[in-house]
Amino acid sequence: MLKIYKGNILFSEVPNRLTAIPDGYIAVRGRKVEGVYKTLPEEYEGCSLAVDTKGLIIPGFCDLHIHAPQWITRGMGYSMELLPWLQHYTFPAEERFSDISFAEKAYGMFVEDLKKSETTRACIFATVHMDSTSLLIEKLKESGLGAYVGKVNMDRNATPGLLENKEESIRETMRLIEWLKADDENSLVKYIITPRYVPSTTRELMEELGKLAGAYGIPVQSHLNENRSEIALVMKFHPECRDFTSVYSDYGLLPEGKAVMAHCIYNTAEEINILKERDVMVAHCPQSNANLSSGIMPLRKYLDMGIRTGLGSDVGGGHSLNISEHMALAIELSKLYWTTHPESKALSFAEAFHMATKGGGSFFGNVGSFEAGYEFDALVIDDSDLDSVMPLSLEERLERYVYTGSRENIAGKYVAGERIF
Amino acid sequence: MLKIYKGNILFSEVPNRLTAIPDGYIAVRGRKVEGVYKTLPEEYEGCSLAVDTKGLIIPGFCDLHIHAPQWITRGMGYSMELLPWLQHYTFPAEERFSDISFAEKAYGMFVEDLKKSETTRACIFATVHMDSTSLLIEKLKESGLGAYVGKVNMDRNATPGLLENKEESIRETMRLIEWLKADDENSLVKYIITPRYVPSTTRELMEELGKLAGAYGIPVQSHLNENRSEIALVMKFHPECRDFTSVYSDYGLLPEGKAVMAHCIYNTAEEINILKERDVMVAHCPQSNANLSSGIMPLRKYLDMGIRTGLGSDVGGGHSLNISEHMALAIELSKLYWTTHPESKALSFAEAFHMATKGGGSFFGNVGSFEAGYEFDALVIDDSDLDSVMPLSLEERLERYVYTGSRENIAGKYVAGERIF
Repeated sequence: MLKIYKGNILFSEVPNRLTAIPDGYIAVRGRKVEGVYKTLPEEYEGCSLAVDTKGLIIPGFCDLHIHAPQWITRGMGYSMELLPWLQHYTFPAEERFSDISFAEKAYGMFVEDLKKSETTRACIFATVHMDSTSLLIEKLKESGLGAYVGKVNMDRNATPGLLENKEESIRETMRLIEWLKADDENSLVKYIITPRYVPSTTRELMEELGKLAGAYGIPVQSHLNENRSEIALVMKFHPECRDFTSVYSDYGLLPEGKAVMAHCIYNTAEEINILKERDVMVAHCPQSNANLSSGIMPLRKYLDMGIRTGLGSDVGGGHSLNISEHMALAIELSKLYWTTHPESKALSFAEAFHMATKGGGSFFGNVGSFEAGYEFDALVIDDSDLDSVMPLSLEERLERYVYTGSRENIAGKYVAGERIF
Repeated sequence: MLKIYKGNILFSEVPNRLTAIPDGYIAVRGRKVEGVYKTLPEEYEGCSLAVDTKGLIIPGFCDLHIHAPQWITRGMGYSMELLPWLQHYTFPAEERFSDISFAEKAYGMFVEDLKKSETTRACIFATVHMDSTSLLIEKLKESGLGAYVGKVNMDRNATPGLLENKEESIRETMRLIEWLKADDENSLVKYIITPRYVPSTTRELMEELGKLAGAYGIPVQSHLNENRSEIALVMKFHPECRDFTSVYSDYGLLPEGKAVMAHCIYNTAEEINILKERDVMVAHCPQSNANLSSGIMPLRKYLDMGIRTGLGSDVGGGHSLNISEHMALAIELSKLYWTTHPESKALSFAEAFHMATKGGGSFFGNVGSFEAGYEFDALVIDDSDLDSVMPLSLEERLERYVYTGSRENIAGKYVAGERIF
């Protein structure tokens, strides 16, 4: 089925420049983009327009790091650093997801919030609880959003209510993997192996999870080098490994091109080389890094090395699911980093947009651009109320929307060719 | 006229702790708070309730630094640092305010945006144009907001359309001062002397402005130590002064307790002493400081010295008039500063709230608190849609609102006892 979308089209082909097509056309066949045009090719003439807007049409945003259960604690408890925050705030909240009726309510609200946001694809941590994780997966399938979702695995350093034993953890993970494997391969919701982070996952559990990732060919998500106390804890637990990144790579948790690691603030040069070698996706989470006093991530290093990078809201370390806010903050923190590291060029707006779309989107396949063959994930932005009194270029309208718009400006949202609201 | 407001009351008496009164009462007579109560005193029984809410009642927020004309360029051009941004982006936009019909439209939209925001009192820069500044003042009076407003004075280093000569600049400034002086002393909109910043104001003009401030007993607003290139420029122009702060103090522009200086990122210890001596109010503008690559302001130094501090949106260096965003970012940047300056304790939520209310409010008189004798500036916050699934304390509800709420949550806004929407 062919659909034509007409509007002011903006997307990212390369990191440092936006592609802008005023009053252009996107032809979409089924779930994929067939082409983008300044004038409608003859072959499409007579096709009716699925969208005809004076607003902007841009790719949907990708959120590479969300804790769904922490949606209920977002915007609170930020006086603590990572480790005490986990123990005193986050883990007790996550324990409540053993109650399926609590999960029903909380995950219902989370998915509704995500659906109304700019995000079309996300990497999502649930909790250790298999049943409420299934529920979250069902709700995401109903929403039309694209997502990788994982039950969290943790068999040490957690509150008693969240502590699993290794066998139970693996058994439940396999049940979820098998259940989702039975889906159509085009299903938009897929499983991702989710060891919480090294301090909460024993070597034995990590090894088993690494084997599952290999056997099923599925991806892995976790946390890496977020906080100095966390790093000290990791090295105390794993004197057998060279560094934090090596723990994951030594235990098979960095499948090539299929691992996404959040934060990466304190990676050494050797650790960055491992990320490069294993083609790891880095999820940069500036809001969380600020809220939890983690530090400013040296993003330019990763960009210069050609390491894949995207953005993560890290709700509840981050307080908002709006990726626009994270784009703005990524740019802002990179500028502040530059004031003390003048060799480290600040992130440009085009680069931040690339991270939120094509950069992060690459974790989900051909996602995040309007180039031919890409899945059509899109936002139609009605920016008519963001009045400027002055004429603006398309690039300025997009920058203005990202800095000053809100989800009230989203007039339509599409995932893999389907309108989801 | 007595009015009783009932709700969950939160305000700041001291910097590091919130005062919270669940289901309490505020008695307001005319424009001032008469008292705050856990249970309604007998003498008020039978009075009808002006507000009866299950939401929060908090003081209105104070924005100590806004450029009204730059509202039209907010959220754009942030790839530049301060000096090129002024020359290439801001000054051309400000030139358009010579056209009164343009100003009518742009200032109309700005004041409408400010009215719908959390801000009840503001310090506002206009442009050099007297007529459009009068128009802005009229619109602010109609809005019911409280504000100090000044025509900008600049007689060097500006684009030709913004350059004044000294005599013209002083004559027009005096006309505006005299016009506003004729108002009732309770008028909520007042004049503030507004030399743009040292690089754009000659010694002679600064001296004349300093005399006006003294003669009329009115306050002064300007910019101080925002950016390293700016500081170098100031010292090139004024070898006769010890430092940037001394330029203002030497030329009479720091009237005691009546000057507000934005930014103050790079003040030396000696300069901070001058601020202390002259009881200068510091307007901390974290969003602008990030957007324009200015740097992280060492806020803790000022707090430890007991220097008065408040928050400024600095629109258009900042992109949003929502002071909640600036509170969150002030906390976030103070945490990131702490990661590299461990002696510098991060800003607590209570301290940020104090800056946005009683701290900044002190520039306007008894403003920013619900203590007896304070002007009743208030926001009624309906936070029922910020659902948490878990029971929250009042302090948590306020923190949650600041981090995740929006102006849609403002159910009522009061300035000096009057409901303005």
